[in-house]
Amino acid sequence: MLTCIDHVGIACRDLAERISFYESAFGLTVVSREVNEEQGVREAMLHVADGPAGSSYVQLLEPLAPDTPVGRFIARRGEGMHHIGYGVADLSQALASLAAEGVRLIDERPRHGSMGAAVAFLHPSALGGVLTELVQAASQ
Amino acid sequence: MLTCIDHVGIACRDLAERISFYESAFGLTVVSREVNEEQGVREAMLHVADGPAGSSYVQLLEPLAPDTPVGRFIARRGEGMHHIGYGVADLSQALASLAAEGVRLIDERPRHGSMGAAVAFLHPSALGGVLTELVQAASQ
Repeated sequence: MLTCIDHVGIACRDLAERISFYESAFGLTVVSREVNEEQGVREAMLHVADGPAGSSYVQLLEPLAPDTPVGRFIARRGEGMHHIGYGVADLSQALASLAAEGVRLIDERPRHGSMGAAVAFLHPSALGGVLTELVQAASQ
Repeated sequence: MLTCIDHVGIACRDLAERISFYESAFGLTVVSREVNEEQGVREAMLHVADGPAGSSYVQLLEPLAPDTPVGRFIARRGEGMHHIGYGVADLSQALASLAAEGVRLIDERPRHGSMGAAVAFLHPSALGGVLTELVQAASQ
């Protein structure tokens, strides 16, 4: 079902400062910047690698306000890894398969993700504490 | 410097149970099982994807005892994402470059990682709370 590690989502307080670190220390390049009002984040995607079934990114997430999911995450746990995103070829089919397995979903239907992708989150309680996102890239 | 997302490291209490979930829900396959006494973990690598510069895995980590880094992590924060591992072509060169940038390292020299890789950890304080591992795969 999973085609690649699409991205690791990292919560930070200061997006510009964190981008600057990943650029200078690792030589990564920002390929997309977006504000996602629905998810309450300002974000940047930094390209790591291309693969046959999709590319991999570091996704840096700064909360738009304290009272957002990422804002509450940082208040509770501090900055750090927030979620992992895996590529899938067909998101609706993947969600149907997981629901049939009894996996608890946050999103029963795809919603809008970064760079035009369709995405859905699975509940961390179903995945041993790991907030997990499935990503069907826009180009597929 | 980074060639791929090599793996996401996930801390769990029961390795067998967690492997079973990733196999049945996502169709992943275990390609390696190891006990790393130095790091105090029993682990499994589940293959996600191959890329031109390296493969990507989910690494499931069960502590060998409560008084180990992963055991203390689970006691403090619960099960969940523990670290992210990026591929590099030349680990010694990468560490020298990061040290020159002033990035705080946990390992100044490569040590033994999963599946014969050479690995080194960077300090989460240098990376906005993200424990980060660099991985030079054995086949390179």
